[in-house]
Amino acid sequence: MKQEILKLGAKRVLIQLPEGLKQAAPRLAKIVEKAGALPIVSADPCYGACDLATTDAENLGVDMTIHYGHSKMVKYERVPTVYVEARATVNVNDVAQKALPLLQKWQRIGLATTVQHVQTLDVVRELLTRAGKTVIIGDAGHLNYPGQVIGCNYSNARSIAKDVEAFLFIGGGQFHALGVALSTSKPTIVADPYAGTALSIDKEAEKIVKQRWAIIEEARKATTLAVLVGLKPGQKRLEEALEVKKKLEDKGKTAFLIAAEEVTPEALMEFPTIDAYVNTACPRISFDDASRFKKPVLTVNEALVVIGALSWEELCRRGLLES
Amino acid sequence: MKQEILKLGAKRVLIQLPEGLKQAAPRLAKIVEKAGALPIVSADPCYGACDLATTDAENLGVDMTIHYGHSKMVKYERVPTVYVEARATVNVNDVAQKALPLLQKWQRIGLATTVQHVQTLDVVRELLTRAGKTVIIGDAGHLNYPGQVIGCNYSNARSIAKDVEAFLFIGGGQFHALGVALSTSKPTIVADPYAGTALSIDKEAEKIVKQRWAIIEEARKATTLAVLVGLKPGQKRLEEALEVKKKLEDKGKTAFLIAAEEVTPEALMEFPTIDAYVNTACPRISFDDASRFKKPVLTVNEALVVIGALSWEELCRRGLLES
Repeated sequence: MKQEILKLGAKRVLIQLPEGLKQAAPRLAKIVEKAGALPIVSADPCYGACDLATTDAENLGVDMTIHYGHSKMVKYERVPTVYVEARATVNVNDVAQKALPLLQKWQRIGLATTVQHVQTLDVVRELLTRAGKTVIIGDAGHLNYPGQVIGCNYSNARSIAKDVEAFLFIGGGQFHALGVALSTSKPTIVADPYAGTALSIDKEAEKIVKQRWAIIEEARKATTLAVLVGLKPGQKRLEEALEVKKKLEDKGKTAFLIAAEEVTPEALMEFPTIDAYVNTACPRISFDDASRFKKPVLTVNEALVVIGALSWEELCRRGLLES
Repeated sequence: MKQEILKLGAKRVLIQLPEGLKQAAPRLAKIVEKAGALPIVSADPCYGACDLATTDAENLGVDMTIHYGHSKMVKYERVPTVYVEARATVNVNDVAQKALPLLQKWQRIGLATTVQHVQTLDVVRELLTRAGKTVIIGDAGHLNYPGQVIGCNYSNARSIAKDVEAFLFIGGGQFHALGVALSTSKPTIVADPYAGTALSIDKEAEKIVKQRWAIIEEARKATTLAVLVGLKPGQKRLEEALEVKKKLEDKGKTAFLIAAEEVTPEALMEFPTIDAYVNTACPRISFDDASRFKKPVLTVNEALVVIGALSWEELCRRGLLES
């Protein structure tokens, strides 16, 4: 980090960290300061590398952005950006061991994890192999590491879904594990090294599938819809939003474009006359906040189901999170 | 609005409305559409004309922004902007009448209101004059209308504070009325045409003054502070933030710069090692969310009190909201 600052001769550096890792900000700021540059920490929510603070960086006249905790996603950055991947030091052996009994039924196991734990995949592979399993780690070429998943991209897991009977996901929380289950429709076991637990995420995934079906059914009644356009650099799909708007209008619906930096239940509550939303920004917003939204918030593919351009079965086959 | 679109030949128009008025969005979108342009509604929170969506406008490639509900504040707009002031049609006579008994003690009354009700000031002036009062409406030249106040600018009220014994504020809610009371230190009566009530805001203002004093006392213990830089076009004061940072460091404090589009209690909770904040963005954030912030969030002047560069008495004399 220090070398990059010196190499660029940066005088002012924006530091961006995701929620949950922001407490590292003062420590990073001190490193930047010692390298002779002025650090400015971004306090706005950051949920992924899609969320790169390019306009803030320009706005603040910084020479360089340090994006912490995610690997690179947006191809073109207007301000030079250094990605500092946060690697967890927590040991995963114990939870991988705990996961073994839950994987008993299956022989061929796919592995998936976030960038924080990619360095543990070899150890887990060995542990599973010693237990007699056949282990496969996918690499579809879209992410930085084999087996890696990010909130909206499970291509590595999907690329091997047909070859495995179940997935073992290494990492904290339900967010990414649910993504694996929903994208692959395969039984998924989570080995969470922070909680020290191993458990199946399948009930939760099933619940979400049922919820999505109910939301699609509710959206069929909508006459006025808004198509949401994300303003974050890796979430902006204006052309796709315009296409969806046209398709809705062709089916006799009234459709507006609504742009947002943050798509929140509070923001959408300000538009009481909109019956349903089609979200072209982060697909996870629709899924993870579903119960907090008062109106249906559909993915683009779900909207196609609503207007009869795609079948529910085909959507499930493609994966609910795919766009 | 239609004429402006035609005059500019705009093909794509961003519509920005403040919270509480966003339900007018579909109606405005239809007008834009009929004028032959593509409307895009901004769903992000908007609390004032300081909050003009310039970067969003550029990001979405629009030819024109319609900013609804506020009068112009930011001098230079990078995308042509039309301000559509929302004028309330609600009658204020009844509540002005109700305010009269509350104004009994005082002879010389200053009037203040928001842009929504500026057209009612003449009627209220007449009503008060007929009741034997001397009415003064201030004009310091910084806002569009005599007597107008905005969330962070009470210069019109302040300019006549020494000439009046009390203020009558016409408008809804407590937000602007509190601003008048805090900026002028004069008894302030609110005539709220939406609630149909007239009442004194002075107890509430006193409570806030006491709270500010307590927050300053708490901030004296802080060793690590962050200076908040607003990213909204009318709230960005980076140079001032750098000055505050230097002053804090000169007093032996550790100080970081933290930039934010939205300064929220949730955002600040991500930085547990910061003891207190100095907010150079919207001054109202410190005041109106004070009880929701877990750490002291000071205005710049309050920070000067903390480091002994300004006395509490002088701060009160200048007005707590002045920068």
